Amino acid sequence: MPSETDLQEMYDHHCIQRLMIRYIDRVDANDPTGAAACFAEDGVGVYWGDYQGRAAIAERLTGILEVFAATSHHLTNVMLDIQGDRATGLSYVYAFHRYTENFAPMHYWGRWVDEIKRIDGHWLFARREVVGIGQIMTGDPAPAEPFPGHPGRLAD
Amino acid sequence: MPSETDLQEMYDHHCIQRLMIRYIDRVDANDPTGAAACFAEDGVGVYWGDYQGRAAIAERLTGILEVFAATSHHLTNVMLDIQGDRATGLSYVYAFHRYTENFAPMHYWGRWVDEIKRIDGHWLFARREVVGIGQIMTGDPAPAEPFPGHPGRLAD
Amino acid sequence: MPSETDLQEMYDHHCIQRLMIRYIDRVDANDPTGAAACFAEDGVGVYWGDYQGRAAIAERLTGILEVFAATSHHLTNVMLDIQGDRATGLSYVYAFHRYTENFAPMHYWGRWVDEIKRIDGHWLFARREVVGIGQIMTGDPAPAEPFPGHPGRLAD
Repeated sequence: MPSETDLQEMYDHHCIQRLMIRYIDRVDANDPTGAAACFAEDGVGVYWGDYQGRAAIAERLTGILEVFAATSHHLTNVMLDIQGDRATGLSYVYAFHRYTENFAPMHYWGRWVDEIKRIDGHWLFARREVVGIGQIMTGDPAPAEPFPGHPGRLAD
Repeated sequence: MPSETDLQEMYDHHCIQRLMIRYIDRVDANDPTGAAACFAEDGVGVYWGDYQGRAAIAERLTGILEVFAATSHHLTNVMLDIQGDRATGLSYVYAFHRYTENFAPMHYWGRWVDEIKRIDGHWLFARREVVGIGQIMTGDPAPAEPFPGHPGRLAD
Repeated sequence: MPSETDLQEMYDHHCIQRLMIRYIDRVDANDPTGAAACFAEDGVGVYWGDYQGRAAIAERLTGILEVFAATSHHLTNVMLDIQGDRATGLSYVYAFHRYTENFAPMHYWGRWVDEIKRIDGHWLFARREVVGIGQIMTGDPAPAEPFPGHPGRLAD
C-alpha cells in the first residue's frame, strides 16, 4: 500500500497534469483568455519575452494564435518536483500548426519549463516558459478536405 | 492526503486511460475484433458514419485498416468528466500510417470524443467519435529497411 | 474507494512511468551515463544488439547519440503488467532527431518492450528493447534560427 505521502504526490501530479492539459485545450480552442486563466493572477508567461498577469498573457497568446487556422499541442513526459504547495515542472510538447495563409503546416518540438503553485486548493502556473527544440514546415499547405477541428474551437 | 472521492476519480481516470490505450493497441495490432471489444455491446463507433455494435464496429475498422501496412496511434491529453458509472472524454491522437501501396506515409491529428460507461466493474466505450484536426502525407513511400512493427501484429 | 491493490497498481504504474520519462530526459540531455543508470546493474539494453550492464549500455548510447544535435523522445501509451516486484511493459515513442550533419531531420516511431524490476524499492529496467514501426526524413536540414534545446543538455 502506498504511503499517504506517495498518494499525495501522485494526486498532485494528476492535478497539475490536468492543469497543463486544460491550458492546451484552451489554446487549441483559440481561447487565449481561457488559457491565461490557468496562470496565477501575478503569473508570468514567457513566450520569447516575459508577459505578467492574465491580461498580458491573453493578449500575447492572441497575437501568437492569430496566424493559425488550427493548432494541436500534444503533451507528454511530464516531470514534476512537488514540494507542498509549490512545484517545478519540465514537460514535452509536439505541436502541429496549420496557417490561415497558404503555407505548409508547421511542426514544433519544445519543452515547457514551469513553476506551479497551489492557491486556495487549485494549482496554477506561477511561471511558464516555452523552450524550443526544433521546428520544421512540411505537408500540403491546404487540406484536401475540410476538418472539423478542435471541439468547441472559437471563431477567429 | 487526498479524499476518497479524489482517489476514486484518479483511479477511474487511470482505468479509462487504460481502456483507450488497449483500444489503440488492438488497432495497431491489426485486430479489429479486439478493438471492437473495447465498446459496450450496444456501443456506437463514429468513423465518418455511425456503426453500432461490436460486429459492425469490427467490420468498419477492418475496412479502414486494410489499406495500411502499419499504424501508430499516440494518445495524449486525456480529459475526463467522470460522474459515477458514466464519463465523457476528450483526448488527442497523433497517428503515423504507412500504406501497403506505394504512397507517402499519412500523418493524422485528431480528437477522440467519448462517452464511457462502467458495466460490471469495467469501463467500456458507449460512443466514440473521431474528430479530425488535420492530415498530411510526407516521407518516403517505402522504408529504407524493413521494420519489425507493432509487437504481436496480426497478418493482413 | 479503490482497494489497496488498486492503489498499489496505480502507484507502481506512476513510478514506472516516471522511470521511463527519466530515461528519456537523460537521453535527450545527451547524458548516456544518466540514461544507463535507469537500468539494473545487470540490465540489458537491446539496441539492435544486446548490451549488458550500465557501462556497455552507456557506451552504446554514446555511439547512437553522437550523430545528433538534438533528440526529442515523446512517450505515450504506457501499458504495464505488474506482478509484485516485476513488471513487463509495452509503450510508444515518437522521436524527432536533428543531425549534426546537414541532413533532413529524422522522425522515428517505435515501441519500447520492457522488463522492469523493483530493487531496494526502486524500479529499474531489467531489459529494454526498442522495436521500430517506421522512420522518415523530412524537413529543412538546418533550423532557420538556433533553438535553445533540451534544458541542461550536455555538450557533445
